[in-house]
Amino acid sequence: MARVYNFSAGPAMVPDAVLKRAQEEMLDWNGTGMSVMEMSHRGKTYVSIAEKAMADLRDLMAIPANYKILFLQGGATGQFAAIPLNLLGDKKVADYVNTGSWSKKAISEAKKYCQVNVVAEPAKFNTVPEQAEWKVNPDAAYLHTCHNETIEGVEFPFIPETGDVPLVSDFSSTILSRPIDVSKFGLIYAGTQKNIGPAGMAVVIVREDLIGKAAASTPSVIDYKLQSEADSMLNTPPTYTWYMAGLVFEYLKEIGGLEKVAEINQRKAQKLYQAIDQSNFYSSPVEPNCRSWMNVPFILADSSLDKTFIEEAKKNGLETLAGHRSVGGMRASIYNAMPEVGVDALISFMQEFERTRG
Amino acid sequence: MARVYNFSAGPAMVPDAVLKRAQEEMLDWNGTGMSVMEMSHRGKTYVSIAEKAMADLRDLMAIPANYKILFLQGGATGQFAAIPLNLLGDKKVADYVNTGSWSKKAISEAKKYCQVNVVAEPAKFNTVPEQAEWKVNPDAAYLHTCHNETIEGVEFPFIPETGDVPLVSDFSSTILSRPIDVSKFGLIYAGTQKNIGPAGMAVVIVREDLIGKAAASTPSVIDYKLQSEADSMLNTPPTYTWYMAGLVFEYLKEIGGLEKVAEINQRKAQKLYQAIDQSNFYSSPVEPNCRSWMNVPFILADSSLDKTFIEEAKKNGLETLAGHRSVGGMRASIYNAMPEVGVDALISFMQEFERTRG
Repeated sequence: MARVYNFSAGPAMVPDAVLKRAQEEMLDWNGTGMSVMEMSHRGKTYVSIAEKAMADLRDLMAIPANYKILFLQGGATGQFAAIPLNLLGDKKVADYVNTGSWSKKAISEAKKYCQVNVVAEPAKFNTVPEQAEWKVNPDAAYLHTCHNETIEGVEFPFIPETGDVPLVSDFSSTILSRPIDVSKFGLIYAGTQKNIGPAGMAVVIVREDLIGKAAASTPSVIDYKLQSEADSMLNTPPTYTWYMAGLVFEYLKEIGGLEKVAEINQRKAQKLYQAIDQSNFYSSPVEPNCRSWMNVPFILADSSLDKTFIEEAKKNGLETLAGHRSVGGMRASIYNAMPEVGVDALISFMQEFERTRG
Repeated sequence: MARVYNFSAGPAMVPDAVLKRAQEEMLDWNGTGMSVMEMSHRGKTYVSIAEKAMADLRDLMAIPANYKILFLQGGATGQFAAIPLNLLGDKKVADYVNTGSWSKKAISEAKKYCQVNVVAEPAKFNTVPEQAEWKVNPDAAYLHTCHNETIEGVEFPFIPETGDVPLVSDFSSTILSRPIDVSKFGLIYAGTQKNIGPAGMAVVIVREDLIGKAAASTPSVIDYKLQSEADSMLNTPPTYTWYMAGLVFEYLKEIGGLEKVAEINQRKAQKLYQAIDQSNFYSSPVEPNCRSWMNVPFILADSSLDKTFIEEAKKNGLETLAGHRSVGGMRASIYNAMPEVGVDALISFMQEFERTRG
């Protein structure tokens, strides 16, 4: 079958060019007679692949020299525990902004390890509260945000100013979608399965001075200091996922880096939101200034047509458009790997569906 | 280049047939128009792949119905922490047998969470102390063994009898190498990167009554109860690694299951140890009754020839034969995916090397 346009929120599409290269290299990487997944992680060949991936990510995101990059297992959910375990030090409290489902999960996990001060929480998860309204705790070890809520499609339209309190942000669904100023953050983390590649790894970008305060009970595999000293190879890393992530980083550099990627992503999102706003049949539940470039939820005027919409979309090669089970409606996740023609195809289908069924 | 015989201790060889199938399916799994790594883990298609892998493993290992299978991130090293966190309950102490490098790492990590009673430790890591000599603690929450020490090549020649104390064993390098009686164990765990497939996952087979005692500070992603209730999908699992593991399970069933696999493995190991023992140039540092079927360390009579041996082996398509940096010498890891002709090629090379250089 022809490749489909897959609007899954994650795991999600991987660029065709990357999959084709992985396919070609599956049984023999670069004349070694081995698949990358068969290589010892301590061998020169694999280390060269691993180091290139790290270097390409640093280059792509312009990550300053005083930040470490860690590739860890356990996904972003693993980081929900790793962050308080590593960053609290002598502090007893951490600030969290609650903007939706993933903020709530991060808060719930953090409560195992510290007192959580929820600094802001909108009545409805369709907006980001303005920072002037936040009730921060000056003794907080860090302030946590989910920069893009994958389920609600709500994205921070600003980078918070947190003074001496390190800003810690979950970028799982928006990392690499455009350039960001890493120096504004104490720590950025992201699961790899949305905007990078396969599931099974978390990228953690952490300012060096925040490393080294792990609680005694921190499992070694998520201890930032131990993993940093071991170049993320304290134990066997997910070598193939790391390699696939590296292929994606290389691809993004080849197509022009994050400036170019941002241009495409902005255009993809704008045309989809415009199609929704111009219609009387579809609507966006999210405040216009907080709409995610990556996850675009939308609602049909007649929810009894939801099932038909999803079935007919599938027949047109447009997959995984159902909204998350907790919120319903539709959601189109349009990460970097979703080509612009995929968004065009979705818009055409939506217009045709409205014309014939709406 | 032709495929090489890769004697890496892990990550290690994957069967050619499995790699070829993964290659064919890379851009389009079974007419879905998607790579497996692009599929939502909550979707019907991926769930069917995931469930089949679990069912095939249960079938292959004849895992009784009162055992749960978990596929978790963090590798076996992650389990070094997860085991005490999940199994201690109200107990304060755990028994550990120290038979080598991986036992030591497990002990070191467990000490963060409980008092460790080392029940036995040989003077030299080339044997397994007889159980009659062990000094167990009747109040231990569990007794831990590393059933096969990957670095030293030492394997338990028996399954310990531990009465009411659950037996917990690291099978990272020996899982699926032959049938075992799972009912003798409270918990069996294994990183996937040695005898299963790619790195990035740990298989945990745990008796149901041991689940549900996790310490309050256990990160959710390694909480056996939460992951068991969520069929190992509390958070996004390493979907592609899980799929690859499933392909390996299917392949092992196709070639005749673990009885057949054991027959081949025993023959491979026997002929290699025989070649070592019959030579005056090579020797095995391990007591004959504790020699691993999977990891075969051997020593050259003249260690100044080590480097030459490794270089010439490489020229003959025999890769990654250097012993672990902590012990030196040579080590041939001959997991399930190492074909018997690969072992034959190694033996021929060893004999030729001895004849010309020994």
